[in-house]
Amino acid sequence: MRACRYDVTMKNNENPGLILGIDIGGTNTAYGIVDACGKIVCRGSIPTQGEESFYDFALRLREDVTESMRQTGGIPDAVVAIGVGAPCVDSEKGTIEGAVNLPWPSPIPLAATLREVFGLPAAAENDANAAAIGEMEFGCARGVDNFIMLTLGTGVGSAIICDGRLLKGKRGLAGELGHVPVRKGPEARMCNCGRPGCLDAYVSARGITNTARELLEASDTPSVLRGTEALTPKVIAEAAAAGDQIGIRTMDFTGEILGEACADFTAFSSPEAFVFFGGIARAFPIFRKPLEKAFNKNLLWVFDGQVRFFQSSLPETEAAILGAAAVGRRAIKTNSQPITP
Amino acid sequence: MRACRYDVTMKNNENPGLILGIDIGGTNTAYGIVDACGKIVCRGSIPTQGEESFYDFALRLREDVTESMRQTGGIPDAVVAIGVGAPCVDSEKGTIEGAVNLPWPSPIPLAATLREVFGLPAAAENDANAAAIGEMEFGCARGVDNFIMLTLGTGVGSAIICDGRLLKGKRGLAGELGHVPVRKGPEARMCNCGRPGCLDAYVSARGITNTARELLEASDTPSVLRGTEALTPKVIAEAAAAGDQIGIRTMDFTGEILGEACADFTAFSSPEAFVFFGGIARAFPIFRKPLEKAFNKNLLWVFDGQVRFFQSSLPETEAAILGAAAVGRRAIKTNSQPITP
Repeated sequence: MRACRYDVTMKNNENPGLILGIDIGGTNTAYGIVDACGKIVCRGSIPTQGEESFYDFALRLREDVTESMRQTGGIPDAVVAIGVGAPCVDSEKGTIEGAVNLPWPSPIPLAATLREVFGLPAAAENDANAAAIGEMEFGCARGVDNFIMLTLGTGVGSAIICDGRLLKGKRGLAGELGHVPVRKGPEARMCNCGRPGCLDAYVSARGITNTARELLEASDTPSVLRGTEALTPKVIAEAAAAGDQIGIRTMDFTGEILGEACADFTAFSSPEAFVFFGGIARAFPIFRKPLEKAFNKNLLWVFDGQVRFFQSSLPETEAAILGAAAVGRRAIKTNSQPITP
Repeated sequence: MRACRYDVTMKNNENPGLILGIDIGGTNTAYGIVDACGKIVCRGSIPTQGEESFYDFALRLREDVTESMRQTGGIPDAVVAIGVGAPCVDSEKGTIEGAVNLPWPSPIPLAATLREVFGLPAAAENDANAAAIGEMEFGCARGVDNFIMLTLGTGVGSAIICDGRLLKGKRGLAGELGHVPVRKGPEARMCNCGRPGCLDAYVSARGITNTARELLEASDTPSVLRGTEALTPKVIAEAAAAGDQIGIRTMDFTGEILGEACADFTAFSSPEAFVFFGGIARAFPIFRKPLEKAFNKNLLWVFDGQVRFFQSSLPETEAAILGAAAVGRRAIKTNSQPITP
């Protein structure tokens, strides 16, 4: 059981209330009502597709949330705010722009519509950023003011927390660490973004399978991966865990590249931790040693001994909802909007 | 004449007061009394060496400041705070630790001692950071919430402003951009820090002269730099400006490396500007074109058209004092310490 960072507040008989956390994905929209300790007291999900306007979608969402709360019964407190995570969010405006997988016309007035439909303060955040805020509120980065979260999946996402704040930068574009080069020169692998050597080209799902393919082609080493039709990071990591040489060398190389990149990133914001999130982060125990070795070898001495590495401690099915809820809780802390339930 | 960002305040008959800005260097300590528009109304300097304790040094400094103010006469307002820039400052504690060129025992209680001796609120900041804050208050970065300042001199210093705040990170070590690699692999040049390929190894004074030396050795191209005993960035930049081929190729290469590095840095904090400061920044008009070309070639497309490049607009003799004064002004804005002149 996780300790609750709001113990002190609650001892003082203040009432932190509940937050509705919403994670909008291309296929499904999941939601949960989250207490101040990060416990989801009620949850549900609806298909994202179906309405032509986001307003109509929000009405359907409200119906579903209301019904879920009725069925759950005994909701221990009032819902005081909404937090929502989605792709391509401009958190200043609370809108989504240019998210190709969502069915509503762009820009989508995310926060304003939820505020109107639910009658509650609402805040929106890019999903990768929401995950980092969730990690800071409820996960392994609690009490850590300086960390970098790397989401390792189809692509490499990132969010940078420095001095206790999420870095946004011009147009909210800070933290494109997947597209910082880790290899230069002619042997650098081409990235999907059209530039050579990006971190994404090595440690995304595609990057890892490409590494395994290159290693398979370059040698005759026997491997269970030879002839595997659907080569995925999961299959490769499992092969590595079972002692397969190509699997091991693939995960070693992945860890080395990631460790080298983390050493470079450290010189930027002086973090005390890196948190790995997403499907590929599940292989953290397998690539941890080569990662730490490469990190220490490439680190500027002034940072020696300062940085730790974590695999996200949030249950994957809950992380997006907890992150969104954390965004909502932060919004009411900093927001003077009246609560009109 | 620079426009004053405090016009509005002053129209409202509020009195922003004057700030004593102090720049502590290994040899000399320069100071100036700075008004809200960045005008130095009174200035002076004393040798840094001479006392065994910082307290005694501060007493001598106060005497000198008092005498300078008396001689100037007609100081238009009250001094309301002190800002100080120095090497190796821990700005949270207001102390200096491990500055090898300063004569007092470490840690030096910089802010606390000045507060006691002058009876004024005092804040201290690392000198590179102070320069960036000065640029934001009085220089070319006024109104710019996201920029990176690169100080090009004996070494490469940096300060990152993101979302209107100076990034500090764990132990105040954010922004070691001089030691981010810009070259990888066997051809990377060794840096003084013991790691290969750092930006510092290419665009510091030593880096630039090494580039010129390598180019001289690698060809027979006639050059005024051939046989020059004291090869410095200044001499090289002057040769480039006069059409010398080795000079031009040296500055082109310097600009290219710097542009490539700035493209990488942009993915981190999404700045809208880079500001170049320090002796080598004077050659900015000479390396600007290759810099911008390499920057645009290496930039991730999402940042296209977002970033501008500036040479610092602060007079070099005044920049350190103005930066320190800006640190002091920020301190009284955020500080509830009583002013006890």
